[in-house]
Amino acid sequence: MAKNFVENIADMEADFPQWYTDVVTKTELVDYGPVKGTMVIRPYGYEIWENIQNYLNKEFKKEGVKNAYFPMFIPESFLKREAEHVEGFAPEVAVVTYAGGKELDEKLVVRPTSETIICEMYSKWINSYRDLPVKMNQWCNIVRWEKTTRPFLRTSEFLWQEGHTVYSTAEGAKEDALRMLDVYRRLGEECLAIPFFTGKKTESEKFPGALETYTIEAMMHDGKSLQSGTSHNLGQNFAKAFNIKFLNKEGVLEYGYSSSWGVSTRLIGALIMVHGDNRGLVLPPRVAPIQVVIVPIGGENEQVLLATKELEEKFSEGGVRVYTDRTENSPGWKFNQWEMKGVPIRIEVGPRDLAMGQVTVFRRDELTKQQVRLEGAAEFATNLLDEIHTNMFEKAKKFRDERIERANSVEEILKVVDDKKFARVDICEDENCCLKVKEKTTATSRMIEEENISGKNCAVCGKKATRTVLFARSY
Amino acid sequence: MAKNFVENIADMEADFPQWYTDVVTKTELVDYGPVKGTMVIRPYGYEIWENIQNYLNKEFKKEGVKNAYFPMFIPESFLKREAEHVEGFAPEVAVVTYAGGKELDEKLVVRPTSETIICEMYSKWINSYRDLPVKMNQWCNIVRWEKTTRPFLRTSEFLWQEGHTVYSTAEGAKEDALRMLDVYRRLGEECLAIPFFTGKKTESEKFPGALETYTIEAMMHDGKSLQSGTSHNLGQNFAKAFNIKFLNKEGVLEYGYSSSWGVSTRLIGALIMVHGDNRGLVLPPRVAPIQVVIVPIGGENEQVLLATKELEEKFSEGGVRVYTDRTENSPGWKFNQWEMKGVPIRIEVGPRDLAMGQVTVFRRDELTKQQVRLEGAAEFATNLLDEIHTNMFEKAKKFRDERIERANSVEEILKVVDDKKFARVDICEDENCCLKVKEKTTATSRMIEEENISGKNCAVCGKKATRTVLFARSY
Repeated sequence: MAKNFVENIADMEADFPQWYTDVVTKTELVDYGPVKGTMVIRPYGYEIWENIQNYLNKEFKKEGVKNAYFPMFIPESFLKREAEHVEGFAPEVAVVTYAGGKELDEKLVVRPTSETIICEMYSKWINSYRDLPVKMNQWCNIVRWEKTTRPFLRTSEFLWQEGHTVYSTAEGAKEDALRMLDVYRRLGEECLAIPFFTGKKTESEKFPGALETYTIEAMMHDGKSLQSGTSHNLGQNFAKAFNIKFLNKEGVLEYGYSSSWGVSTRLIGALIMVHGDNRGLVLPPRVAPIQVVIVPIGGENEQVLLATKELEEKFSEGGVRVYTDRTENSPGWKFNQWEMKGVPIRIEVGPRDLAMGQVTVFRRDELTKQQVRLEGAAEFATNLLDEIHTNMFEKAKKFRDERIERANSVEEILKVVDDKKFARVDICEDENCCLKVKEKTTATSRMIEEENISGKNCAVCGKKATRTVLFARSY
Repeated sequence: MAKNFVENIADMEADFPQWYTDVVTKTELVDYGPVKGTMVIRPYGYEIWENIQNYLNKEFKKEGVKNAYFPMFIPESFLKREAEHVEGFAPEVAVVTYAGGKELDEKLVVRPTSETIICEMYSKWINSYRDLPVKMNQWCNIVRWEKTTRPFLRTSEFLWQEGHTVYSTAEGAKEDALRMLDVYRRLGEECLAIPFFTGKKTESEKFPGALETYTIEAMMHDGKSLQSGTSHNLGQNFAKAFNIKFLNKEGVLEYGYSSSWGVSTRLIGALIMVHGDNRGLVLPPRVAPIQVVIVPIGGENEQVLLATKELEEKFSEGGVRVYTDRTENSPGWKFNQWEMKGVPIRIEVGPRDLAMGQVTVFRRDELTKQQVRLEGAAEFATNLLDEIHTNMFEKAKKFRDERIERANSVEEILKVVDDKKFARVDICEDENCCLKVKEKTTATSRMIEEENISGKNCAVCGKKATRTVLFARSY
């Protein structure tokens, strides 16, 4: 039955990259833009992003973060003020050299991230400890010119939010970075049904200019890791580069301490590759643009019309995102279509079921059908959305937990990642050991799981291990 | 009492441009970005924009419009496909010439508007009359390199929404343009408390590439007009340039008919200049970031603490945006501060009032105070918000209606606009007559109020007048 569509989507076990491309384009989440490396986020994809925005805006508000908007064009000189920062971003920036018909005196970089311009403004606004903490966030587009691109995962332009804070103490900034990391972890748990690994990046993987970078990492279906968001403790690095000073309580001028944190449309890529299957998308209910699709069968039947309308109204009243497919296509075609598009619940309203006072409820996550009394069907499905969410999260967690393996040498790491798993590795303080793993296995240190371990030896050099690190191949 | 602040804001009657600059910066709506002509929208300004977005997103949804996101970079060649379009926008575009460390093969224009790139995508997606109408909107940043800039009114980069549709008939596109114009008119009436003039632009003022441009125009405090949004019937112009074809019901390939419409952060400039006074901002309640500010007087008094908390909770429960100023500043300072920031209602909670079971309610629009029973104060203030909204709208309407005058010659038009008013002018079909008015008076034709008039003579050339046009100086 599902053949028509499945034939158009590559087998995920045989060719995962092609499966991904098929899924994102055929479900109309996204299309390729006319400029190489750019993407168009189509309504079905954009609404997922809006649902993520709604969740985060509420969380940000609880944290006292205020939304604002800073200019996209950054004077080239700004980027150069923080040495590591410019080194990290200069190779991938897009540059405006003329505007308004004239060559510009100073070239303008299209923001690859906004620490520099926001810190410049903060230095104007912040004077006293009374002004702190300052916590702002912006939702905007970002440009990083990448060589290999893939929709959502890595594109020349993408959408994100970036939060930027300044605190009066080092602890303030560090705690903020950790607290926002936890907001992202909860976004995964409560919204995307993704169990993120959370932890600190090792030196070679941290944000250019940060003291410490924390990350949320997710395991994709192919055993690769996707860095899905980061939170940085910037210490005084940017405050010094941009002269953010405040009078402390003792009346002494001091540099501020800052943090920044962001997640992007890449999260959509994450949920596709965590939950999807060979029929296409499986969308987590809390971000699905359509949570329940109703398919009336024998649409001219008066009972069917009535029952459909009644269900629709109940869902709408309950705040459930419902859509009724009244197109001329056959029921079978519709079933395939909405399964491919990953709608969590389908309700089939047909005369035979109705004669027995029932409708058929299909859940996308388990591909199971059951008959439910029409009377309580809306309530049943609404509750089922939560059950589906939990089931998807647990499934993803089980999948992930079964695919982490200890590895005690470079050879073992290679074996584990070749086996499409994450390697849990005790390793020493020397970042070169992480880089050696990368060189030999193409797996990178994703994050530090535990610090200050003792009694273990480094899997690479054999010296004293000080930390446990997850290694994986990654997007 | 209000002296402290008022001294920092120029007198609006004496120097309106300086008043505007003082108001937008000192109330922290906005700041100047480091690149000339750019602005930073600070949280107090951005929240107004978010409230406008919330209103419009709901209206767009009712119209069946879906949000999406299209790339910001447009190949230079796209802009050239529609002849009028490129002529209109080429002089003010910003251009990316290198990216990722390399000179680009084709220069990329940063979108000055997105008809071209969206129509390019539509041509891929639209095949049959069954696909129509297509209606999408995006919220994004726009770049137009302007010589003279002013925060919100005209900046190199600004935020807006742009809706783009394709219909299968000419009437469909035209009706859409008119319907969205009405959405904007209602945004003014229901949200911004601004009575917009709505009508069609004359030929010389229409959007480059449009068949017809409709506009919402608002009269500012200085008698100038601010074009606050536009809606375009694009006919088949862009469909032909970008090859948007569909199979009609008869199985014949036909070009689509399109419309586009947008409003921007300029609306914030409009509401400042329509409602503001010599104390600063007067914000319409429905978009005000803070609708009610509570100022506790004698903050240690237990009764004051209690009453404040109770009020706060009632407002929050009722969905009113409330803020309690618990800073160490004096009550007088706070009063000035929040008056300058335009908060619609201030509630003063002091021991003397409380002893009589009451609080003092101040309304910003009328600068009046009254005592209200504590018990019903939250309900009273909540209802007052609606009353303030209506009052602000009526006041603005009265102001506007008193400043429209008939003018029957170029000399009279000059006199009327010099008098800080709009001139209502019968004029002939020849656009040169409009341009002659502009040349002699610096006032432009803002919009056509009435078409197909008869029995009147053109105020410029004396020939048969066919339409009544509003003329005004403008931003």
